[in-house]
Amino acid sequence: MSTTTERTRPTAENPVVDVRGLEEVLLGRWADIRRTARAFLTDPRLHRVEGQTMAQHRETVLAQLRILAREGDVLRAFPPALGGADDHGGSLARFEETIVADPSLQIKAGVQWGLFASAILHLGTADHHARLLPGAMSVDVPGVFAMTETGHGSDVASIGTTATYDPETREFVLHTPFRGAWKDYLGNAAVHGTAAVVFAQLVTRGVNHGVHAFYVPLRDPATGGFLPGIGGEDDGLKGGLNGIDNGRLHFDHVRVPRADLLDRYGRVAEDGTYSSPITSPGRRFFTMLSTLVQGRVSLDGAAVNTSKLALIIAVTYANQRRQFAGGSPTEEVVLLDHAEHRRRLLPLLAQTYAQAFAHERLLETFHAVFSGTADTDEDRQDLETIAAALKPASTWHALSTLQTAREACGGAGFLTENRLVSLRADLDVYVTFEGDNTVLLQLVAKRLLADHSREFKDIDAGGVARYVAGRAADAAMYRTPLVRVVQTLADGGDRRRSAGQLRDTETQRELLTDRVETMVAEVAAALRPAAKASRAEASRLFDENQHALIECARAHADLLQWEAFTAGLAKVQDPSTRQVLTWLRDLFGLTVVERNLAWYLINGRLSAGRARTVTSYIDRLLVRLRPHAQDLVDAFGYGPEHVRAAIASGAEGERQREAREHYRRLRASGTEPVPEKAVRSS
Amino acid sequence: MSTTTERTRPTAENPVVDVRGLEEVLLGRWADIRRTARAFLTDPRLHRVEGQTMAQHRETVLAQLRILAREGDVLRAFPPALGGADDHGGSLARFEETIVADPSLQIKAGVQWGLFASAILHLGTADHHARLLPGAMSVDVPGVFAMTETGHGSDVASIGTTATYDPETREFVLHTPFRGAWKDYLGNAAVHGTAAVVFAQLVTRGVNHGVHAFYVPLRDPATGGFLPGIGGEDDGLKGGLNGIDNGRLHFDHVRVPRADLLDRYGRVAEDGTYSSPITSPGRRFFTMLSTLVQGRVSLDGAAVNTSKLALIIAVTYANQRRQFAGGSPTEEVVLLDHAEHRRRLLPLLAQTYAQAFAHERLLETFHAVFSGTADTDEDRQDLETIAAALKPASTWHALSTLQTAREACGGAGFLTENRLVSLRADLDVYVTFEGDNTVLLQLVAKRLLADHSREFKDIDAGGVARYVAGRAADAAMYRTPLVRVVQTLADGGDRRRSAGQLRDTETQRELLTDRVETMVAEVAAALRPAAKASRAEASRLFDENQHALIECARAHADLLQWEAFTAGLAKVQDPSTRQVLTWLRDLFGLTVVERNLAWYLINGRLSAGRARTVTSYIDRLLVRLRPHAQDLVDAFGYGPEHVRAAIASGAEGERQREAREHYRRLRASGTEPVPEKAVRSS
Repeated sequence: MSTTTERTRPTAENPVVDVRGLEEVLLGRWADIRRTARAFLTDPRLHRVEGQTMAQHRETVLAQLRILAREGDVLRAFPPALGGADDHGGSLARFEETIVADPSLQIKAGVQWGLFASAILHLGTADHHARLLPGAMSVDVPGVFAMTETGHGSDVASIGTTATYDPETREFVLHTPFRGAWKDYLGNAAVHGTAAVVFAQLVTRGVNHGVHAFYVPLRDPATGGFLPGIGGEDDGLKGGLNGIDNGRLHFDHVRVPRADLLDRYGRVAEDGTYSSPITSPGRRFFTMLSTLVQGRVSLDGAAVNTSKLALIIAVTYANQRRQFAGGSPTEEVVLLDHAEHRRRLLPLLAQTYAQAFAHERLLETFHAVFSGTADTDEDRQDLETIAAALKPASTWHALSTLQTAREACGGAGFLTENRLVSLRADLDVYVTFEGDNTVLLQLVAKRLLADHSREFKDIDAGGVARYVAGRAADAAMYRTPLVRVVQTLADGGDRRRSAGQLRDTETQRELLTDRVETMVAEVAAALRPAAKASRAEASRLFDENQHALIECARAHADLLQWEAFTAGLAKVQDPSTRQVLTWLRDLFGLTVVERNLAWYLINGRLSAGRARTVTSYIDRLLVRLRPHAQDLVDAFGYGPEHVRAAIASGAEGERQREAREHYRRLRASGTEPVPEKAVRSS
Repeated sequence: MSTTTERTRPTAENPVVDVRGLEEVLLGRWADIRRTARAFLTDPRLHRVEGQTMAQHRETVLAQLRILAREGDVLRAFPPALGGADDHGGSLARFEETIVADPSLQIKAGVQWGLFASAILHLGTADHHARLLPGAMSVDVPGVFAMTETGHGSDVASIGTTATYDPETREFVLHTPFRGAWKDYLGNAAVHGTAAVVFAQLVTRGVNHGVHAFYVPLRDPATGGFLPGIGGEDDGLKGGLNGIDNGRLHFDHVRVPRADLLDRYGRVAEDGTYSSPITSPGRRFFTMLSTLVQGRVSLDGAAVNTSKLALIIAVTYANQRRQFAGGSPTEEVVLLDHAEHRRRLLPLLAQTYAQAFAHERLLETFHAVFSGTADTDEDRQDLETIAAALKPASTWHALSTLQTAREACGGAGFLTENRLVSLRADLDVYVTFEGDNTVLLQLVAKRLLADHSREFKDIDAGGVARYVAGRAADAAMYRTPLVRVVQTLADGGDRRRSAGQLRDTETQRELLTDRVETMVAEVAAALRPAAKASRAEASRLFDENQHALIECARAHADLLQWEAFTAGLAKVQDPSTRQVLTWLRDLFGLTVVERNLAWYLINGRLSAGRARTVTSYIDRLLVRLRPHAQDLVDAFGYGPEHVRAAIASGAEGERQREAREHYRRLRASGTEPVPEKAVRSS
């Protein structure tokens, strides 16, 4: 995207960003796939049409989904024999880009291929693949992923729907025993879905073997009516994502053939004998659910891409829009030259870069696990933990970035034509679906505790974090040897030297790492008595420390992002660009420190004087980065067909130019009215 | 609203809230008007119909506006001679309630009566009142308040539209000289408005006398077409408030009769001579704009009411919904019994109470000024400052409360039937219209600086805060004599004693007041050189301190709310209720301290040990307040016809009861499937 701001010339103090080179770094390992997807997504047939009714939007998105199936290279994750490419990382990289067309389309695609078809792929076996995958892949069978119930979302293990095996007829009897056990919030359930993968408690021979998945036809494709025993409701209008027909389903003793249990991890013989390749019910549940991780990974990527769009819009506008007089008597000040405006937008830009680098690493980890190059239980658990840490961080960040961008664009930001409000409405639910952020952070915390001490692997008194087993994690991703350099920060020294220390990579790493480790150790100590306490007492102890656990996980997520950003710097060849990105990384790191400044002070990690330096150094970084803001958003590599926001189109720059020209001509003409103030004082 | 939670019996440690008594206290001085308005607003004709198209929603709201005009007692602020009651505070109290029907209706009413008719009332004179008010009051003339331009929103003094007097024809020539000077974002401009109050630079005899208001017919009421020389555009779909037809207007040398200048504060004689009762152009501008303050006051009240609705919904649901096992093997835990859930919701409840009390005081100040019992320039400036401090606090708070409530209700919160998402979408723009929050906070800061030292009254180097003159303020509202008791907090003592100090009213006051005063003094010292610096240097200095200025204003707003809450405690007669409210006030005060803990540590106001106590005492307060959460939201006094959220209707409680009954019967029947885990371990 072109910009009207004048670029500073390169000097040692004023480096210049190599926008195209930086764009390549950000495109990452799957650059070609991303580029192809972005080119494809310039097609107006795929773009959100604002102002449609819910019914129209739903039909538009279904039609777009079929275009994707035919032309969009969206089947990369499936087996080559069925037209796929067994390319898991590339597939997600491609899906994440879809959000620039319409988040509803991204999520509808996620429901169809990432959840419905993917459950058949990962939980089913050869017969299911041959019978069921083609229809799911081609969208001949729009499918529902029926896991969540009205009564149970985050706690999937406790769902109420049952599938009881009847050896007489060799069928499962699928049943919803009470209203709270209705399946709910399901994409494709209200209108389009003709089949579903339904999760239910598998009961055979009087034993409940826990949650398993069943393939269940829902509607007669010819009439659209429900099949016998099946009913449902439309969830109706939502806060966003209204291109997806979410709804409820219930089952009244619906007969499911034995063969339609997706039986990779649990089978029932004709006589009702249950068997599974995984002995432990807990580990089996975790394994089955772990195929869901791709949802979290792709939400993380989509959220980061949305933050990029928001910042392109807000920064471009802030570089053109002028408001309030400043140092010049005739020119108003460009918004981004107001200090508060910089302080609102630039730290968000820094965090978006951090998250973009962190997401790339997550995607690589995901690819290694799903392609089988690194797919031990440990690898899968690492992947789960990293996804559970990053998805909350990036989805919450996207909401605050969209909102700050919206406010920074004033009334213009509130107009749908400028996209920020619709994107925000759509992204809202990203923080609670595919794993509620607060619940995910507790999974992360439990893993941190487990790493801290094996004794604590059985802490799930509160019932949280049922399926994350405790073990040591991928050291490269989040463990750094501790070097106690922090003390020097608490010591004397002038302000300039202090700032110098703050921009030192090892100092930042130490500050962030130390915080995670100290907090985890404190919570671990507080929870130690839980191991030997009664259920009620353990539960109380856990509750008392719940907030601290979540804070540990957030701190860990901050560190993950910072480490990824720091590692990303090494990929930048051009020294001038690397200089700017290093300032941006420093801004991210110090913003995290500033947000938690009280902790550093209370725990003696920073003296009061050094703590002040954090803020003043952030202010210096904001001034340094300001001239590069446009380049840094341009490097996200989205064109006008992706951004599609009137205020980021250059129109505002043109309006400002016209207004200034008007006043210039008026002054030159000698007919400019004299201000009353000037008349009075003369 | 009824609740299914069991109430604790009254003991010294467990007081009981007198819900009805507390409701009376909250209804405040205009209790009768509020009660009547709430009863009226149960009428389904006035309620938001979800899922309408923009065009339908606009027509619905216009029809509702006419119902309000006929039946809604909405003309209280107008002169008795014209059917009003000269009741300014009561009028706003009544309007603020309208938000429970539909925020679009509140804002459409605000445009019609609070801006358009109010401008005629306050800026016009007897002839205008007689000629123009009846149509505006009855909505026979739907009106536009045409102040904001595409190019200038916050900086009204710099608008580009001109009204140049032509003594030949005794008319003003109203003209939009360039695209950026188009009027924009105007309610009623896209479709319904048949007349407007247009703000333009008044030019006569070659002198620009600054911004004045003109009454201008826009459309032929019969055809709906624009009158000659007038054009416009529809702003189209917005992020919310789509019941209002916002649009743009432009004027091509439109002739306005001399009599249609609203000339209370500035008149032009037939020969073009300008005169005004207010000599200073700056003070005149401030006076004319100060009639707008009622917009900010009513947004503050409406935002507080919306936070109340959000908390009623989220707390009621959190008291019924169960998720995750806890201390009991058979019962899941009610959401509000999870510590993190309390920590997310209860501080928001405390702040909502603080803002409700603060709003009541603001409304009383407003009433005193507008009814003439206390309407000196100083009174008006106090009113401006308090409104400018509270409106940002309450509108941002409403957004975060709605969002947190939405997330706390999970997927259910995202369904439109539960109202949170629509309310949030509508309230979004409250933070930037009627004075952008960030700009308003700078006005507050400038006033704080002016009070701090008269020398600084001319600081508007950055062009911000043009019209707030500096002078000492209403001491009762925000000034408290400083007693240096803080030192004791930094001293030794055990944890219990420390907590005892933190709940001491004087300690909290001291902590909050000291922060405001210290920060203001620091910024004042930093800005001192600006008085004698060049324009460019002064501007740079101002920019360097802009963020600190905004922080001062926020701290001041926190203090205002805390003082109002504290004063409100005295109105509560029942000691048991007062005990609970005092805990809630403590929670508010200490949450503010916790949010700014780094400041207290850096500035030596709290020792590290005491700082830890702040958080642990907050945790204790959350546990104490938890049993009273339902009572505290019930006391807001809204019934099911106001709340209209499916999840707060008791349906969730019924679902939970049914599910538990199902499992109880299953256990009793002896046919309950045995968990696989139990089979294996036996």
